[in-house]
Amino acid sequence: MATQAKPVLYGYFRSSCSWRVRIAFALKGIEYEQKPINIIKDGGQQLTDQFKAVNPMQQVPAVTIDGITLSQSLAIIQYIEETRPEPRLLPADPKQRAHVRIICDIIASGIQPLQKIGEEKVQWAQHFINRGFEALEHILKQTAGKHCVGDEISMADICLVPQVYNAERFKVDMSRFPTIRRLNQTLIEIDAFKATHPSCQPDTPDDLR
Amino acid sequence: MATQAKPVLYGYFRSSCSWRVRIAFALKGIEYEQKPINIIKDGGQQLTDQFKAVNPMQQVPAVTIDGITLSQSLAIIQYIEETRPEPRLLPADPKQRAHVRIICDIIASGIQPLQKIGEEKVQWAQHFINRGFEALEHILKQTAGKHCVGDEISMADICLVPQVYNAERFKVDMSRFPTIRRLNQTLIEIDAFKATHPSCQPDTPDDLR
Repeated sequence: MATQAKPVLYGYFRSSCSWRVRIAFALKGIEYEQKPINIIKDGGQQLTDQFKAVNPMQQVPAVTIDGITLSQSLAIIQYIEETRPEPRLLPADPKQRAHVRIICDIIASGIQPLQKIGEEKVQWAQHFINRGFEALEHILKQTAGKHCVGDEISMADICLVPQVYNAERFKVDMSRFPTIRRLNQTLIEIDAFKATHPSCQPDTPDDLR
Repeated sequence: MATQAKPVLYGYFRSSCSWRVRIAFALKGIEYEQKPINIIKDGGQQLTDQFKAVNPMQQVPAVTIDGITLSQSLAIIQYIEETRPEPRLLPADPKQRAHVRIICDIIASGIQPLQKIGEEKVQWAQHFINRGFEALEHILKQTAGKHCVGDEISMADICLVPQVYNAERFKVDMSRFPTIRRLNQTLIEIDAFKATHPSCQPDTPDDLR
């Protein structure tokens, strides 16, 4: 890897899916370059032909790494996991791995995309976050130790923290989800989560720092 | 495995996510029992307390296997892949695996959930399917051989066929997506895809057979 260029992350400071990838890089100690794509400015820089050539879904994040370009945050993180396995982000036991993936997929398929298109209708975003968090709270009560699944940090934690950040933006009442809240509070004190927070990225506007 | 009970699939004949799991079981030659959950009848049987105990997200599919209950189709399929590895549903090469996962995630996070809540507004469902298929068509032109990624059947094919079925239900113009159409036509002739089709499941109504 030493002779190769650093991975490049095309992301946006407040995109929860971009944040997932930033956390994964940070946990693995991988240096990377950030190319901010402002999804608000100019009607959305992800919609340009230039960015479409990077990611045909015209969404952030996308990552160029090892000579290829990847999209979809969970696919990116699993590629990083398979090519840079330490420290691992998926448990060794297949049942524990399944629990991690269930939590990730509830957030990545069952909450985030619906919340996102609901952004202009706060109540709608809240509805989908609440529905997903009710399920997550139930599952996490069974799977959690110090972190989402047992005591090791996993992809589930990487997905949880940015989704709680979204929930807070949409003023979801987190007192209904004590397990999620406890897990989040522990995680946000960890360097890899702190250093990658939307409030301190290269493209974070001054008034949100 | 011989002494253990057969896996049980809680699904619905027309649910594309249930179909994904049926295809995976069929490709691996795993016998399983189907417990149909009618997501239309009685206001949705997935919303009962009884089913909530099976899957707190109150969605199909869910699978009980090896003494645990799993939800989220991709998490289920990856658990099956990791515990019953032959024939494999993910390529050996990490870059190829990443391409498979990108295709799966575009469908599972970027199309299906949005199409689903758009079901009552056909144009909305069409919009999200078209947007996703445009990206997929572009990606598949680069990754496809006989199947979605090279010549081996993978999880990407498992996700593609049920999504094309959805597209046809919503009368999406498939002539715009020649690569997707070609791949789908090859796949639907394969036994594991045919035998698991929504038109021939235990809970398929007579008028849809």
